[in-house]
Amino acid sequence: MRIAGRHHRTIALAADGWSVEVIDQTLLPFAFELRPLQSLEDAAQAISRMIVRGAPLIGVTAAYGVALAMRADPADASLRQAIETLGATRPTAVNLQWALTRMAEALQPLAPRLRAERAYAEAGAIAEEDVRCCETIGRHGLALLRELAARASGRRLNVLTHCNAGWLACVDWGTALAPIYAAHENGVPVHVYVDETRPRNQGAALTAFELGAHGVPYTLIADNAGGHLMQRGRIDVCLVGCDRATACGDVANKIGTYLKALAARDNGVPFYVALPFSSIDWRMNDGLAQIPIEDRAAREVTHVTGIDEYGRRLEVCIAPADAAAENPAFDVTPAGLITGIITERGVARADRAGLAALYPERDAPRRAGA
Amino acid sequence: MRIAGRHHRTIALAADGWSVEVIDQTLLPFAFELRPLQSLEDAAQAISRMIVRGAPLIGVTAAYGVALAMRADPADASLRQAIETLGATRPTAVNLQWALTRMAEALQPLAPRLRAERAYAEAGAIAEEDVRCCETIGRHGLALLRELAARASGRRLNVLTHCNAGWLACVDWGTALAPIYAAHENGVPVHVYVDETRPRNQGAALTAFELGAHGVPYTLIADNAGGHLMQRGRIDVCLVGCDRATACGDVANKIGTYLKALAARDNGVPFYVALPFSSIDWRMNDGLAQIPIEDRAAREVTHVTGIDEYGRRLEVCIAPADAAAENPAFDVTPAGLITGIITERGVARADRAGLAALYPERDAPRRAGA
Repeated sequence: MRIAGRHHRTIALAADGWSVEVIDQTLLPFAFELRPLQSLEDAAQAISRMIVRGAPLIGVTAAYGVALAMRADPADASLRQAIETLGATRPTAVNLQWALTRMAEALQPLAPRLRAERAYAEAGAIAEEDVRCCETIGRHGLALLRELAARASGRRLNVLTHCNAGWLACVDWGTALAPIYAAHENGVPVHVYVDETRPRNQGAALTAFELGAHGVPYTLIADNAGGHLMQRGRIDVCLVGCDRATACGDVANKIGTYLKALAARDNGVPFYVALPFSSIDWRMNDGLAQIPIEDRAAREVTHVTGIDEYGRRLEVCIAPADAAAENPAFDVTPAGLITGIITERGVARADRAGLAALYPERDAPRRAGA
Repeated sequence: MRIAGRHHRTIALAADGWSVEVIDQTLLPFAFELRPLQSLEDAAQAISRMIVRGAPLIGVTAAYGVALAMRADPADASLRQAIETLGATRPTAVNLQWALTRMAEALQPLAPRLRAERAYAEAGAIAEEDVRCCETIGRHGLALLRELAARASGRRLNVLTHCNAGWLACVDWGTALAPIYAAHENGVPVHVYVDETRPRNQGAALTAFELGAHGVPYTLIADNAGGHLMQRGRIDVCLVGCDRATACGDVANKIGTYLKALAARDNGVPFYVALPFSSIDWRMNDGLAQIPIEDRAAREVTHVTGIDEYGRRLEVCIAPADAAAENPAFDVTPAGLITGIITERGVARADRAGLAALYPERDAPRRAGA
């Protein structure tokens, strides 16, 4: 999408043709810097330190991490090591495991000398597919937003989103924000309420940045405010991304998503989750029991990073020095709270039958094996 | 309550016998400083700049503000002016209007020369009554917590609270935290999950500070995390304060309270609101339609105050420089989501009949007038 009028992707091959460049998302919204990834370790660190984040982008970065490892050493042990290292970077987004499995299946049967080239091709294909997926999610979501806008009879459509499921979380377009970009491009007057998304403030830092840079009107709010706005009829639809969905439509997404889904149900506001097929974990049927939830450092809760009045980036402590803190990074929104799941194949009911109808080829083997 | 082993109140007459000293809550948890209030303007600013906050403490500070005004000039015009100025400081907490009405009723009939002394006496009485109210709320709440602890069969009781309804919000003890202090003092093993309470972080800055200073174990969490903890069975009870309750039991409290009440209902977690009689607005029957909600500055959302690694207090910006933000400071939790209201007279069902049973003298004139 656009920053200062120029089109960007979050990840791309560098001019040297082999190293990988990513936008360093830990510096946004204050600085826009590309960061080169030149090794498996660079890629693994980029994921674990959240230089890149967002389920689809984590998957693509992992795929390129395997390619970088194969370029350095295409032996079986190196491939195993790469998949193991990258697989351990973050637990919740299933796209990571999905991308690594796809890379392993593509590379293991090949002779080592053929692996590097194939790995780059496969990573590139995953990236391109992600862009197409997101664009298609945007089109399906646009139809929904048009329908809602028609009911709003001329006034702007107010969308609430949580965390960042925009193009910064993917390669381009985004998942939850793709329909919003599509609406904006197609003249549907759309305005986004952006949850700041504590503790890492991805809403304030990333969603606000990317919407603003692209020219989509938005208003930043505290995570606490969404329920109040829904009570007052000021939200027409909630639209969020996903780190892992089960085959039954339960969805793990950034911590706090569940609270917004509860408020949406209580106020009759439609609640949609946008995701590409690679975020569905067909092995799982019970999100609460089965999806692993990442626990992150207490410091993310007790400290906040921003810029001071001189533009210097620094971290301040907001709690007593000895404060204990817990920091679960995701929560699970049960399928029953979700109006629909927007995928690249269309909008599914958030249940087994709804998802199976869109992905019959994934549902069949699961049932055969059950 | 205790800080470093010494007992404190949030507001008290200074050694000079006429000026008023308050704890400057904008400096907590990083510095503990008393601030003198020597005039009506000092008192009004202390409320509007949130040097003092919390519905009961706002009421007491306003009462002392009237006393300071009467000391300077006890004429009718001065009294009217004091009540008008203080009444305009903050809109949501009804204790402010309640305290000002009480002061006006006590002072208006008096000859001006008698007003100053009476004003100090009345403000002092309001403060003492608040302490007694809070202590009694603590005893009633303790009975509830004991009951819940008995079901927890030996393990610690986990209480979730939002914002600060502790002694820092009152004169001493607190409302929502009074039962927790009572439990702690009486050997009931209690642990508090403290919502940080964006955007002003009163949970991280005030609740964490006062619980820690008094020795009550707590864990700070992002506001987003409470629903997840309830889903996992890790919260036994929610206990929050109140800025204004209607006669029907709807409750305005810090923004985000409503979301926690929804999660409590969804997970079968009891949700209690603690308040003194002065927080009930008997003129109101519909919280959503009638309780005025304060809109505060966008800067509270886009900027965060803390201390840097050298202990310097400073403000950082966490959002794009041109970010628009909205900042509603309170939301309304409908009575239907509230398990019970803990007052100084006992625990009421959150509805008209429940509150009327505890306060028959307030209910009767309302019905007579209806």
